[in-house]
Amino acid sequence: MTTNYDALLEKVYELHDLEKAVAVLAWDKETNMPKAGTKARIQQITTLRRLHHQKFTSEEFGGLIEAAAVELAEAGYDSNEASLIRLLRYTYDRARKLPPELVKRSSETSGAAYTAWLEAREANDFVGFAPHLEKIVALNREMAELYGYEDELYDPLLDKFERGMKTADVRAIFNAVKEELIPLRAAVAERAEAVDDSFLHQPYDVAKQKEMARVLATAVGYDFSRGHLGTAVHPFSTSFSRDDARITTRWNPDFINAALFATLHEAGHAMYEQGTAPDLARTPLARGTSSGIHESQSRMMENVVGRSRGFWQAHFGELQAAFPAQLGDVNAEQFYRAVNKSQPSYIRVEADELTYNFHIILRFDLEQALLNGDLAVADLPAAWNEKMAELLGVTPPDDLQGCLQDIHWTSPTFGYFPTYALGNLYAAQFWETAVAQNSQIEEAMAQGDPAPLVEWLRENVHGYGRKFTPAELVQRATGQPLSHEPFIRYATAKFSEIYDL
Amino acid sequence: MTTNYDALLEKVYELHDLEKAVAVLAWDKETNMPKAGTKARIQQITTLRRLHHQKFTSEEFGGLIEAAAVELAEAGYDSNEASLIRLLRYTYDRARKLPPELVKRSSETSGAAYTAWLEAREANDFVGFAPHLEKIVALNREMAELYGYEDELYDPLLDKFERGMKTADVRAIFNAVKEELIPLRAAVAERAEAVDDSFLHQPYDVAKQKEMARVLATAVGYDFSRGHLGTAVHPFSTSFSRDDARITTRWNPDFINAALFATLHEAGHAMYEQGTAPDLARTPLARGTSSGIHESQSRMMENVVGRSRGFWQAHFGELQAAFPAQLGDVNAEQFYRAVNKSQPSYIRVEADELTYNFHIILRFDLEQALLNGDLAVADLPAAWNEKMAELLGVTPPDDLQGCLQDIHWTSPTFGYFPTYALGNLYAAQFWETAVAQNSQIEEAMAQGDPAPLVEWLRENVHGYGRKFTPAELVQRATGQPLSHEPFIRYATAKFSEIYDL
Repeated sequence: MTTNYDALLEKVYELHDLEKAVAVLAWDKETNMPKAGTKARIQQITTLRRLHHQKFTSEEFGGLIEAAAVELAEAGYDSNEASLIRLLRYTYDRARKLPPELVKRSSETSGAAYTAWLEAREANDFVGFAPHLEKIVALNREMAELYGYEDELYDPLLDKFERGMKTADVRAIFNAVKEELIPLRAAVAERAEAVDDSFLHQPYDVAKQKEMARVLATAVGYDFSRGHLGTAVHPFSTSFSRDDARITTRWNPDFINAALFATLHEAGHAMYEQGTAPDLARTPLARGTSSGIHESQSRMMENVVGRSRGFWQAHFGELQAAFPAQLGDVNAEQFYRAVNKSQPSYIRVEADELTYNFHIILRFDLEQALLNGDLAVADLPAAWNEKMAELLGVTPPDDLQGCLQDIHWTSPTFGYFPTYALGNLYAAQFWETAVAQNSQIEEAMAQGDPAPLVEWLRENVHGYGRKFTPAELVQRATGQPLSHEPFIRYATAKFSEIYDL
Repeated sequence: MTTNYDALLEKVYELHDLEKAVAVLAWDKETNMPKAGTKARIQQITTLRRLHHQKFTSEEFGGLIEAAAVELAEAGYDSNEASLIRLLRYTYDRARKLPPELVKRSSETSGAAYTAWLEAREANDFVGFAPHLEKIVALNREMAELYGYEDELYDPLLDKFERGMKTADVRAIFNAVKEELIPLRAAVAERAEAVDDSFLHQPYDVAKQKEMARVLATAVGYDFSRGHLGTAVHPFSTSFSRDDARITTRWNPDFINAALFATLHEAGHAMYEQGTAPDLARTPLARGTSSGIHESQSRMMENVVGRSRGFWQAHFGELQAAFPAQLGDVNAEQFYRAVNKSQPSYIRVEADELTYNFHIILRFDLEQALLNGDLAVADLPAAWNEKMAELLGVTPPDDLQGCLQDIHWTSPTFGYFPTYALGNLYAAQFWETAVAQNSQIEEAMAQGDPAPLVEWLRENVHGYGRKFTPAELVQRATGQPLSHEPFIRYATAKFSEIYDL
């Protein structure tokens, strides 16, 4: 007998396949496609997205969700079925709030803004980009109004990436981070010469970098038999199923870091997708629950694991063997210290584990000010530089190294930036809980073996996919709501030791 | 004002994008996808194909075609608009003749047959595959009956791949080829020792093979700025637009041929797609017109160009420099002779330019016999071996090297095999015409430069895409219908000279 839920699943599968087809087309666009293929590829992606949107936002699909919900009224909150209904109601309602005209206009405005941003970067000309940014700010505002909100205009935008989280909560957490981290950052800055990372900046053979990237991704638990490592200018990860979750990285011939840590970062993202429970497959539950939780998994592999002493005591020998000329005179401890060098910098994507959060807090504050009309676009460069001085103690020499550096504001995605820092905080809280629950986790990590930690993550995070909101997941996994304290403890211990504070 | 034709085009674009999305998913499946991703990928492809089929065979789409046809009644036969209407009517009518139940059953039967074929090959067990082949033969028959025919049951199957061509025409041509080529083949066989190709079978560094593959594909005119070279177990080419037409090849560490000639073969296919006129883009006219004409372009680059004396006089030095240990003692003339060594063999895909056609004639004869019920599946192995003896003078030691070698009969695609040999014949006829029209073409080729030939092909073949049927295209380009004679002249001259007959 076919139930309403079965009928719903059929449609869910179709929508899922369309969405994953778009993901394949997008992945190929960034990895293998010749540039000349861009026009046709954008047409193909646009067509598939339109078909998806038409089907997803149809009255028919909404009716299917509600019919299945009635049938499943008794299903337990934790069941896959109830979780799927909750998620579909949420995403359906949100999607229905944006008229097709807006979706189309947003896409066109973003395309033009992207082109203008590239040109503005060429010419270091913020003024040329400003009119486009004004439109992007207005789009963010328009979308927030359409989604609706109770407390703050920024809430419904943040909600898209961190479902259920409020701007006020993030603000409170970020203020606490700021208060506790600024003194630590300043103390580290005073002892900048204590760590030498000059040997990371040398010519490193790219073919060997590729080999080491595979070795290290495997070492943290990324499953290549259900994955693939490609090359992309801007590293990213994507998944087409739990059995095909891919990573990309970039190869800098004169600096070894990207190949190592961008790879581990993306491996962490992909491991989350590889770890979703098999019975969630082909539904929107088969993915990470939020941008912030996703980022916690990438940061966990990049930093908590990949920048740990034990990890390099275990793996430095292999790296040294691959690069004897570059690393012959370096030992594991020196390497560990070098990859943890902390110093204020202008560019977010080059920032270290300690200073990264300040780059995010800055953007979070400025996004709200722009959205609420408290800051005019024309005044952004000055406001940016002022915040940089306050948070990081440095002032960018130009807008290229200031407010023109990120691609994010070429599309209406306010609310996404904070999830980067939330990821760091979630990661530290997961880590603290995991080692408290199982002493073997820390012991193994001290030997460079993250397997017991990964096991804990699979059980407490990955397996659930998108069944629970970030807050629900964190409460289940750690018994507490999100707090800044574990990260402060983690960072203070680590950097005090390295910098002998 | 929106015309009916505009409305039709909107739907054509949507269908085209869906079809190309499937092509991207299929390309990725064969090149980058981890094997574990197969299940999800097949679901994704199946969903997109179903959406395409629903839309393409809808009454609504048929109505759009006819409404546009009325509007364009005065459009000239050669116009893009009239050509598109002709093609859409043809493909729409054919697609409507197959009920969805049959399409689904065909897909399932083929899937099971493919698995059984793999197992039968493992065990060299034709009997295990026979029941599946019986179903495939029956499916071919069922489809032929549904398509309908006037003369022969094989006609509507052949028509799918070589629109407008009749089985009787192919038979007459193949008989002529057979008659003229058997004596040449036999004469060559008697002088087998005249050509030494042993140095092709040595260890060749794969990384250097990859470099040379790129050099040679570029040399024949494949445009890498609108293409991509990937690796696949079974080399193929595909295109997502004229600006993104890809090739794949395989790398055999102990034999240099595949990297060179499979690459040139696929480059020829992709150059056809790259050469379709820009104003055909995003419509089904933007592709090669038939399997046979497509094969003529791949054979042209693989054999007429890639196995010519001039080509190797121009490029052997580079190959020799890449492989001094393997080719240091070989000269360009010896290399030219080696890559043209002709000898009877059991395996079609390893056959040389001269003997390849016999492998096809055999399959063409046997497909008809199976389809018409003149040959029982159980008797296929014996019939195969008998034909091999007649055509090639050798008898396969087992079915692995006989009737179990091809993947083709795991799906109902009777009618496809003959297009391989037709490709050789078309290629020779195009070549003969081109050099007759422009003496510079042959002179340049003698210097290893195919550019003037490629120019002729672009003008007389590629640019038209699928506007005309194969017969129309050949008549326009060469002033004659397809004939076996140019190929016989070409092969006789070439092999008589090499083998000093």
